[in-house]
Amino acid sequence: MGTGNLVSLAVIGTIAFDSIKTPFGEERNIIGGSALHFASSASFFTDVGIVAPIGEDFDAKELDFLKERNVDLSGIKVLDGKTFRWAGKYGYDLNLAITLSTELNVLEDFEPHLPETYKYANFIFLANIDPDLQAKVIDQVKNRDAYVALDTMNFWIENKREALLDVIRRVDMIVVNEAELREISMEYNLIKGAKKLISMGPKTIVIKRGEYGVFMVNPDEVFLCPAYPLEEVFDPTGAGDTFAGGLMGYLSNVGTVSYDALKQAVILGCVMASFNVEDFGPKRMKSLTHREIKERYSSFRKCIEFGDLKL
Amino acid sequence: MGTGNLVSLAVIGTIAFDSIKTPFGEERNIIGGSALHFASSASFFTDVGIVAPIGEDFDAKELDFLKERNVDLSGIKVLDGKTFRWAGKYGYDLNLAITLSTELNVLEDFEPHLPETYKYANFIFLANIDPDLQAKVIDQVKNRDAYVALDTMNFWIENKREALLDVIRRVDMIVVNEAELREISMEYNLIKGAKKLISMGPKTIVIKRGEYGVFMVNPDEVFLCPAYPLEEVFDPTGAGDTFAGGLMGYLSNVGTVSYDALKQAVILGCVMASFNVEDFGPKRMKSLTHREIKERYSSFRKCIEFGDLKL
Repeated sequence: MGTGNLVSLAVIGTIAFDSIKTPFGEERNIIGGSALHFASSASFFTDVGIVAPIGEDFDAKELDFLKERNVDLSGIKVLDGKTFRWAGKYGYDLNLAITLSTELNVLEDFEPHLPETYKYANFIFLANIDPDLQAKVIDQVKNRDAYVALDTMNFWIENKREALLDVIRRVDMIVVNEAELREISMEYNLIKGAKKLISMGPKTIVIKRGEYGVFMVNPDEVFLCPAYPLEEVFDPTGAGDTFAGGLMGYLSNVGTVSYDALKQAVILGCVMASFNVEDFGPKRMKSLTHREIKERYSSFRKCIEFGDLKL
Repeated sequence: MGTGNLVSLAVIGTIAFDSIKTPFGEERNIIGGSALHFASSASFFTDVGIVAPIGEDFDAKELDFLKERNVDLSGIKVLDGKTFRWAGKYGYDLNLAITLSTELNVLEDFEPHLPETYKYANFIFLANIDPDLQAKVIDQVKNRDAYVALDTMNFWIENKREALLDVIRRVDMIVVNEAELREISMEYNLIKGAKKLISMGPKTIVIKRGEYGVFMVNPDEVFLCPAYPLEEVFDPTGAGDTFAGGLMGYLSNVGTVSYDALKQAVILGCVMASFNVEDFGPKRMKSLTHREIKERYSSFRKCIEFGDLKL
C-alpha cells in the first residue's frame, strides 16, 4: 500500500503556468492548470490527491498552500523539461477564452500513474486530458465502487472521438460545457443530448453554462442551477475546475451520490467557481474561508428560492 | 366612466400578422403581436384590456379565444389600411430572431387612447412601442397608484434615447433582454446596469435571457430564475410577451407587488413562456388549461429547489 494515508478523492489533470489577459488586468506566468484549480477547491471539503506532471522550472513552494490544506502531492511528478504553459485572453464575454499559445512541454510524454494510496479513492476526477490517458487511470483504480467523473474538450471530441466514447462508457458522471455536450452527442437540445450520453452509461450529466449557471440531467430528473450573481468578474480561468472541485469534494465529504447530495454539490460547485473568478489564478482560493463559503451558499439560496402560487 | 366593467390590467402594444420560419416548420400570416401574446397569457389570471390598432384585413373572429377568456377588446381600434405584419426566422439558436420584413401599416399613425374603463386599471403594461406613445399612455392613466411596467427594443434605445429615459423615470418595472439592458444602461454587467436604471426611478428590473431564464434585480435583492427545460421548442415568437403577461397577470390577480409575489410572478411568467414556445403563434395558449399551468409550476419548482449543506 505504500506510505501515507489513503486519499478519498483523486484528480488527474494538469499543473500549468498561465498568462491571462482580461478587460480588467493581466497576469503572466501564474500557477494554474485543471488539477491545481480542482484541488484548491476540493481541499475545503475532503482529502484530495493530485496526479499531474510539472517541469524542472516549477518551484515546489508554489504548492505550499495546497499542502497546508492537506492535499496529497505524492502523485505530482517532476519531469525533465518545462512545465505546461497556456496563454489566453478574454473579452467582455468572459464565457469565451481565446487561446493565444499552448506549450505542452512535460505534458507531451505524460503517463499518469496513481500512487498506491490513490487507488482506493472513493471518488476520481479525470480532468480534461487525452481520453487514452483517462482510460489508463481507470485501469489502475482498485476500488471497484469508485465514483468516476470526467471532463473533456473539443480537441479530443474531434480528434479522439472513439477513445473518448469508450471512456465515457466507463464513468458515472460527465462534466462538460454546452458546446462540448452538443458536439459529443450530436444533439442541439441539451436534454436530448444528455439523455443520449446517459443511454451510454453515465448516470449524471453536468452541463456548465458559464455566467448562466449549470444544468444537471439524471435519468429521471433535471436540475437547474443559475450562476451566482457577481458585479465583478476578474478572471474566469479555472472556473470550470473549481466548480468540479467543489462538486466532487462535497460528494466525497458526505460520502453519497444521492440526488439531494448531487444538487447541493452542484450549488456548492457554483459557489466555489464564483469565488475563483473574483481574482486572478488561485489567489482567491488561497484567502477563502469556510465561513465565507457557507455564507455565500445561504445567500445564493435566497436568490433562487420562491414560494407556492397564491392562486 | 363609459360602459362596461373596469379592467384590472391594461396592455398597450401591437396586434400583427406574423410569418415565421424555424428549423421545425413554417407558418404564414398567423396572428401575433405583443399585446395579443401578452393578453393570451395574462387572461388566465386577471381581467385584461387591450389597446392596439388592427387593419381592415383583420377578421375579428381571430380574437374570439380572447373574448372567451373575458379579455376586454374595446381598446382595439380598426384603422384604414392593413394590419401590422412581421416576418422573421430563427436558426437553431432560438434566442436570436432574424427579421426578414416589417410592414408597419396601421401602426404608422397609431395614437393610443385608453378607454375610460382602462384608466383606473391597477396594472399597466407598455409593450414595445415608441416611447413617446408610452408616455402618452401614462398621461391618460387616472389611477395614481397604478403599477406600470415597460418593454422596449434596440431601435428606440438608439433612435429615441432621451424620450425612452424620460418614460423609464415614470414606471415601476422594466422588462428587457440582456442586450437591451446593456444598451440602455451602458454597463456590461447586468447587476450594475440594473442598479443604474433603479437609480433613475423603477424599483424592479426584469432581464429576459431566453433559454437561460430571467434575472430580476430589486433595490436590495437579486432573484435568479432559470428557464423551464424543454426538449422541443417550436417557435419562440411571443415568448417575451407571454412571459410579461404571466408576470403582470399574476401580480394583478394577487393585488400586491411584494417581493414574494414578484418572485412567484417571474416563475409563472417563465412557465407561460415555456408553453407558448411549444407551438406556432398563440396555438398553445388556446389549448392551455389552468391545471397544466399549476402542474408545470410545481414541476419547475422541483427542478430548482435544493437543501442545506450537510457539512
